[in-house]
Amino acid sequence: MKPNFSLRLRVFNLNCWGLPYVSKHRSDRMKRLGDFLNMESFDLALLEEVWSEQDFQCLKEKLSFTYPAAHYFRSGIIGSGLCVFSKHPIQEIIQHVYTLNGYPYMIHHGDWFCGKAVGLLVFHLSGLVLNAYVTHLHAEYSRQKDIYLAHRVAQAWELAQFIHHTSKKADVVLLCGDLNMHPKDLGCCLLREWTGLHDAYLETQDFKGFEEGYTMVPENHYVSQKDLEPFPCGIRIDYVLYKAVSGFCISCKSLKSTAGHGPYNGTPLSDHEALMATLCVRHSPLQQNPSFTYGPAGRLPLISVLREAWTELGLGIAQARWWAAFAGNVIGVGLLLLVLLCFLVAEERAREVAILLWTPNVGLVLGAGAVYLFHTQEARGLCRVQTELQHVLGREREAQDLSSEPQLALLLGQERGQN
Amino acid sequence: MKPNFSLRLRVFNLNCWGLPYVSKHRSDRMKRLGDFLNMESFDLALLEEVWSEQDFQCLKEKLSFTYPAAHYFRSGIIGSGLCVFSKHPIQEIIQHVYTLNGYPYMIHHGDWFCGKAVGLLVFHLSGLVLNAYVTHLHAEYSRQKDIYLAHRVAQAWELAQFIHHTSKKADVVLLCGDLNMHPKDLGCCLLREWTGLHDAYLETQDFKGFEEGYTMVPENHYVSQKDLEPFPCGIRIDYVLYKAVSGFCISCKSLKSTAGHGPYNGTPLSDHEALMATLCVRHSPLQQNPSFTYGPAGRLPLISVLREAWTELGLGIAQARWWAAFAGNVIGVGLLLLVLLCFLVAEERAREVAILLWTPNVGLVLGAGAVYLFHTQEARGLCRVQTELQHVLGREREAQDLSSEPQLALLLGQERGQN
Repeated sequence: MKPNFSLRLRVFNLNCWGLPYVSKHRSDRMKRLGDFLNMESFDLALLEEVWSEQDFQCLKEKLSFTYPAAHYFRSGIIGSGLCVFSKHPIQEIIQHVYTLNGYPYMIHHGDWFCGKAVGLLVFHLSGLVLNAYVTHLHAEYSRQKDIYLAHRVAQAWELAQFIHHTSKKADVVLLCGDLNMHPKDLGCCLLREWTGLHDAYLETQDFKGFEEGYTMVPENHYVSQKDLEPFPCGIRIDYVLYKAVSGFCISCKSLKSTAGHGPYNGTPLSDHEALMATLCVRHSPLQQNPSFTYGPAGRLPLISVLREAWTELGLGIAQARWWAAFAGNVIGVGLLLLVLLCFLVAEERAREVAILLWTPNVGLVLGAGAVYLFHTQEARGLCRVQTELQHVLGREREAQDLSSEPQLALLLGQERGQN
Repeated sequence: MKPNFSLRLRVFNLNCWGLPYVSKHRSDRMKRLGDFLNMESFDLALLEEVWSEQDFQCLKEKLSFTYPAAHYFRSGIIGSGLCVFSKHPIQEIIQHVYTLNGYPYMIHHGDWFCGKAVGLLVFHLSGLVLNAYVTHLHAEYSRQKDIYLAHRVAQAWELAQFIHHTSKKADVVLLCGDLNMHPKDLGCCLLREWTGLHDAYLETQDFKGFEEGYTMVPENHYVSQKDLEPFPCGIRIDYVLYKAVSGFCISCKSLKSTAGHGPYNGTPLSDHEALMATLCVRHSPLQQNPSFTYGPAGRLPLISVLREAWTELGLGIAQARWWAAFAGNVIGVGLLLLVLLCFLVAEERAREVAILLWTPNVGLVLGAGAVYLFHTQEARGLCRVQTELQHVLGREREAQDLSSEPQLALLLGQERGQN
């Protein structure tokens, strides 16, 4: 590669709010999105919440000239909602479906049915290997009482691990998507600290958009004003994150977001704002992989966030076990009732009532059985993430044994005491 | 690294048949397994079907001196059954749970409840990066009418993809496990062709064990003789596979399997035979990554197996869609019956019968709904794998456009015609 190599990447990201029968003006918005993408001719357009595969096929057809490569990530019952349109050929594709993704009985929230995932596309651009990831994590329905927090933290860890393990030979890593987390939220910090990804909004010198980079704002008339009540100015939950792994450096020349309406005024493209980033990748032989340059002090934020996540998952595990135990008790009571009903029928006492109650009671036992199995699986999934975090903390402890950083020793000592 | 660098790795693999209350003499076998592992002091012991976490904890305690590092891969409701004991420190851990893994209503088979997975452990051995994978795929209950074939092929592809994407910076890749596939089965070929892994049994110059490397044999008195009826001599479904990625070469100095009894005679350790391999890794600066040295002719077996897998998944998709449509019809009939029952109650005709039938009918609709959702998800999962295979075939087609290999053109032309 030439020493003066440089590459400009124009990237588009949007949560399209494309739920059939629910999202307003869906087909019109999809049509206008296609027109806009064709006009702007980005290198890469990464979309979330394209729930209808038909919408993807329409976009694919429309964009086939400007973006010859496209991929839709299928998963779950409804789909992952993720898709990608690219000007450059896609070399390789893989996806990872998150192990934990809400509760099947929370039908009105629906996340469980989506099969939320992270998709990876590998590109070879002028000899440079680009790993582009697109994802959408579990929604946050209540910030005060967020019953999905442990799941979202687990998803953030799975995402970070997936990126960490699949990008080892990539020159540049790009992650776009709706993380459903505010910038300082636990999962967001965990992701950034474990992968070393940089936030385009914080790094760029040229930002055009709402203050604090908000991507859901009350100015957008598709946004539920009630949902935004605790945050009257808006929230930032959509991201463009990136890093250069070795031998390259990457910077964000400009980041622009739509401003509560369409890119050229008019009706918005979605209830989220679109992000448009111009990234510049340059050859930089002296650039070291930051993970190798971390001193003990540099590891402090990682250790701190790992410990916090470990504790949060512990709460999630306790909650999951409580529900499994509760369901177990219901099964016990249900089985006792069934025995009682059999007895009543055999003794010919209240026979009709007993027969009438038999089937609902069987339903209760089966339903409780399903709840028991689900929460047992949930507890096991959370335990698994907690064990992985503990392993990383253990490795850090070993590294600390070789160093004499007092603050680090204190943090790891606390963690050692808790395990 | 020194030019004369060489490393000897002694590896142990066993499907432990450790199902509580079902597997005979479990605790005695686990005890003897621990004694044997302690005595032999392998570098790495990779185990499957350790379903009880308590068994893992007992082994961990017993082996703590000889194998200071250990990990249990938690997943699903019962667990993945996978665990690892290592003489060397584990640097990194990640696991991937297979998207498709049988049917929840096939309770007597139980695979769905296990959360079958692949686990990865990264080791740094004298400056060499070793990625060790352990896995266990869906069982084959009937070779004549294998209803899980599409799922196993999908699992083999997910396994191959996981290895392909996570081992790009590894020097040596090792995969051990019970693949539940015979050496020439579709999934096995797919895995070997896509990852470039070599089969220790086929490569070693010194093999001690049953003919054809069988790992389930009638001589083992724990094996169900009925299951082995179609294969009176035995089957080979447990594997040690490996490759050196670049700058290194790896060879299997010796491979040994138990012979239907314990390692030193006596009762067998499991219903599977254990595999013990001695691998030798040497520095080899001229060794090229085989995937880059493939000419068009070298790609022929890969293309052929990709096409075969694509077709097999197509059959699986048709089957899944049939079940989803059937369940959809049952839901329709059930809903019609519910309307009819409401009408009978309202009209005070056969009121008692109507009330009695109401709950079972609701159960039928809910049950059919669950079946519908499950098979919709199954079809989507299989479609996703098929799309990934199609993408690889498309890339091969583009490579073929630059070559003039007539046999390759013929194969890819057939595939193009079908899509």
